[in-house]
Order: sequence, then structure tokens, then C-alpha cells
Amino acid sequence: MAVYTHVSAEEMERLLARYDSGTLVSAKGIAEGVENSNFLVETTKDRFILTLYEKRVSADDLPFFLALLDHLAAHGNPVPPAIADRDGVKIQKVGGRPACLIEFLPGVSLSHPTPAQARAAAAEMGRMHRALVDFDHTRVNTMGIDVWPELLERCGSDLDTIAPGLFARVQDALSAVRAAWPAALPVSAIHADLFPDNVLMLSDVVTGLIDFYFACTDVRAYDLAVMHSAWTFDSAGAPADPSVGRALIGGYEETFTLSAEERAALPVLARGACIRFLLTRAWDWLNTPPDALVTRKDPLAYLRRLEFYEKHGAELFA
Amino acid sequence: MAVYTHVSAEEMERLLARYDSGTLVSAKGIAEGVENSNFLVETTKDRFILTLYEKRVSADDLPFFLALLDHLAAHGNPVPPAIADRDGVKIQKVGGRPACLIEFLPGVSLSHPTPAQARAAAAEMGRMHRALVDFDHTRVNTMGIDVWPELLERCGSDLDTIAPGLFARVQDALSAVRAAWPAALPVSAIHADLFPDNVLMLSDVVTGLIDFYFACTDVRAYDLAVMHSAWTFDSAGAPADPSVGRALIGGYEETFTLSAEERAALPVLARGACIRFLLTRAWDWLNTPPDALVTRKDPLAYLRRLEFYEKHGAELFA
Repeated sequence: MAVYTHVSAEEMERLLARYDSGTLVSAKGIAEGVENSNFLVETTKDRFILTLYEKRVSADDLPFFLALLDHLAAHGNPVPPAIADRDGVKIQKVGGRPACLIEFLPGVSLSHPTPAQARAAAAEMGRMHRALVDFDHTRVNTMGIDVWPELLERCGSDLDTIAPGLFARVQDALSAVRAAWPAALPVSAIHADLFPDNVLMLSDVVTGLIDFYFACTDVRAYDLAVMHSAWTFDSAGAPADPSVGRALIGGYEETFTLSAEERAALPVLARGACIRFLLTRAWDWLNTPPDALVTRKDPLAYLRRLEFYEKHGAELFA
Repeated sequence: MAVYTHVSAEEMERLLARYDSGTLVSAKGIAEGVENSNFLVETTKDRFILTLYEKRVSADDLPFFLALLDHLAAHGNPVPPAIADRDGVKIQKVGGRPACLIEFLPGVSLSHPTPAQARAAAAEMGRMHRALVDFDHTRVNTMGIDVWPELLERCGSDLDTIAPGLFARVQDALSAVRAAWPAALPVSAIHADLFPDNVLMLSDVVTGLIDFYFACTDVRAYDLAVMHSAWTFDSAGAPADPSVGRALIGGYEETFTLSAEERAALPVLARGACIRFLLTRAWDWLNTPPDALVTRKDPLAYLRRLEFYEKHGAELFA
């Protein structure tokens, strides 16, 4: 959520000269997405996002992400594909980093989505899953269930500095989730991080799904569980309007099918999602100085969500 | 250079509803300017910058800054005035902060201005000074020569952790500058921070002067000295192409007059500018953790500039 690599206007002009995209009119570093550097670039012809991939995104994964975006764009999903230069090259080098010039999409990310907006966003996820049925590239989920024990060990007893007993609490929850994990469910390419931040909307219409840099191959219904855990609570982790949760499931089923097995698995998948975000937030929390100019996201908001799913998961998705 | 206060799309929509400026289409937090939160906001009608004034800008100073921008805009200078809502109000409250919706200006900030670009930018400063001759609001320079001894004491012997002997070195330079300071020169409202960052250009044409949040009333030629110290060295503090410096003075004199006294004072004014930026950068350096995600600007780059002016100031502006 910051600009890590400075790109001079002169360097941007050299980059744009490789494309048929007009000449530079404006460029602003923007605070958006995971740990990449992003610029909103305006030319005489159009607007673009220029993304420089920083350490957290491996250059080896870029071909997967770009193929995914191309596939989705070709199927009419509102995603921003990377643009090829005159030589057909999409992955450039800018400021020493792999970089892509990406289509700009209008729309804003909502902080408090209404049921109608949640329904529209989940319907868009359903459309995305339908389009991905015949997408055959794969990428291991580097933040998936197989990695959670490692994430837990890496945080270790420091977790107890965030809240007393947190390490043991998460360890127990993780054991239970691993024992109940529905690994036999259909697997697909998924977004894996479809927070409200990553959905652009104008009123009740989705104009963009963005920030696919956690996209991977995993249990498909897990994508909806991540979305549920991100959309149906307030930022402190307290459950929001229950009609938002019902709208998510209803919207998804408008455009794609949720089997009985998938629906039954949603509570455990949602508990897994809570563990994943609790652990990555906890790691960032423990490793970000409190006075750094970066907002640390509260890991305990995900403990509260986990507890809610543990208690009410069964009736929630019935 | 970050976004300190989060503003939800919903809150932006409520703000825009006070204006005749269209409805929200896109909003991106941008990394720009001094320590304010800035958003590039697009509506169905136009584009704007929304600025939330954080701690470093006092709300009491906003009327001065807005009057200055209005005066300059009315005189045809390319500055971005704040926009009044339907009730004539320009200073709003957003996210608990004073905030202004500001005209968006095209153009990019250059990292390596050519002589032609330096000439155009300095000519724009000259036009600005001409327009300000009859501007009668005043604001004390809170980063001016009277404050430098205090800034020096505040950093204290910690300066020597940046470079051995730095405290004594700056103390001597400051004494010499204070003894030679030309306080009798014409005083005016000045920008006081016209780095290349704060000039938007398209090719060789200035499209915007921005970031007036250090603007104040001070020796007018000091504005040009600040600009010279910022435009004619590389980021490490080594002197760049001398024709850039000549172009600055030449460009300024195309549109405004530099008296013999002002010209003769430029070396000491430039040494003063170096001390000002050395001290504020040193303070930030000493008070920013090295691992913070904010770029610390090297204070020693200004020591090198100071030394250059001490050695070559006389012939530089002859």
C-alpha cells in the first residue's frame, strides 16, 4: 500500500514509447493492492495502471497471473489484462523490477457493501469460476492449508504477545480444520483474496475484479469462503448485517453452482480462511514497527470471525 | 508521501454530493506532496485532487494557502485552486481532517530537467512573483532563517551520528549565513519549496505549480535560491549541468526582475536554503526508523550543495 520504487517521468516516457498508447500526460504513484508499486498513468490516448512487482510477487508467477487475466478478459469478465507492447511483450523491466502496463478500470472499492452490492460481487465470482472451468494453468496456493502450520510455527509464541494464549488457540483451531478439510471438493483457479478492496463497483454494478496476485489453484468453494469471511464482518471482526452473507451465497448461485458437498463444507473452509488471514496479519503485525507509516491490520479481527464460524457456521450456510 | 487517513468511497460520495462536480467514478490514494493524504478522484464530470491536511499543515494556515492559490489562479498562473461547494465552502471535514477538493492539473514532475525545462519553470516562478506583488496576506516562514538555530539545536549532537563533526560544521555555516543575511531585500509571498517534484510539465511547458504548503512571506530572491539548490544538483548533491543553473536565472529574468542586490545575495541565500533542507532532512532522518516504508532523503546531499555554494557561489551567479 505504498510506492516502493520511484519511477521517473522520463523512464515512463521511455516505457510508453514501446506501446501504441499515446504519450504521457500525468502519472501518480497510487496506494493500492498488495506490496507492489502502482502508478496511475494517463496518456494522450487513455489511462493505465503501471504495476512494478516488488518482492512479494515472484516474477516466476507472472505468466500464470497474466494468462489468468487474459482468459478471464476473453470470457467477458471485468478484469484488467496486461497490455502487450508493439513487439507483443507484456512483462517489462522498469526501475529494475518486472512491470506490466495494465488496463485502467473505473469504479471504487466499497467499505460497507450493501446486500445488493454483495450479491452483484458474488455473482461476478460465480461468472469468474464458470469461465475458469476450462482454464488449465495451475499455481500452488503459497498461502494454502499446507502452509498454515509453517506460518503458525514462524509466528510461534510471539502470537501470545498479541493476545495471551493465542498460539495454542490457533493451533487447536488449525488441527480441527485440517482434520475436517474437504480436499476432495472440485479444484479450480481461484482469486483467493476477493476482499471488498479488490472489487471495483459503480453503484450496484461490478466494474472490476482486481489484484489477482494471490490467485492459485485450490478448492473452488474456498474462494467463496474467503469472500464470506471478508465481506460479512466489520473491520473489528463483529458480524455485520446477516443479509449480506445470504446475498453472497445467493449471488454466487445466480451464476454458478454450489454442490451440496460444497455448501456443507463452507463452515470449515471459512474457518480455514480465518486462520490464513489471522496468521499472515499476525506475522505482519509482529514484524511492522508500530510507528511505521503503514497501517497494520488487526489479526484479532480474524480470531473473532473464526469464533463466529465455530459457533454459528452450521446454521450460517444451511 | 503516503495515505495516512483512509476515506471510504461512501464518504467521498457524501462529500461530492455537496458540489456540482458529478458523481464518483474512481478514487485512488496517491503518494504525493508533503505529509498530507491525497486522492485522485474522478467523477462523471471531471477529475480532482482531494487533500486531507494531516498534522504537518496547520488548519489555521489554510486560509492563507487558499487565498494565495485563488490570487495566483485569478492572475493566470497554473496553480490548482480549491473548489467551493454549493454553499461557497472550500474547507471541508473528511475523515476528521480539514480537507479540500482541488482542481486536477495534467503534467508530470521531472527527475532530470533539461535547461529548456528549467528555464520554463523559473519563468513561471517569475510570473508568480509578479502576480504576488499586490498580494497582501502574510504568513511567517516557519522554516525560515529565524528558526534554523532552533532546528539545529533540536537535532543537536545526533547530527554527528549522520557524519562526524556535522553539528559544528552546520553551526559554523549557519553563523556565517546569519551574519551575511540580506534581510533588507524585497519581501513577498513565496513558494519556498519549488523542487522539480512541485512543478508539473508536459514537454517544455509548465502545466502546474503545486504543493504550496510551505508558502510564506520571506525574502523574494530566497525562493529562486531554494529552486537553484533543488534543480542544479543530482540527488547525491553533486553539481549537475551548469547550463541548468544559468537557464534558471535566465528564465526568471524573462518574466521578472532580479535587482543587482538580489543577484549579489543569491550565494548566501542559496547557502541558507541548503542549511534549511539539511536540517529538516536530518531531523526526519534521525526520527524515521531505517526500515520504515518511507524513503528518507539524504541530508548530506545538502551538505555537499552547501559546500559547493561556499566555494563557487560568487562566480555561479555573477
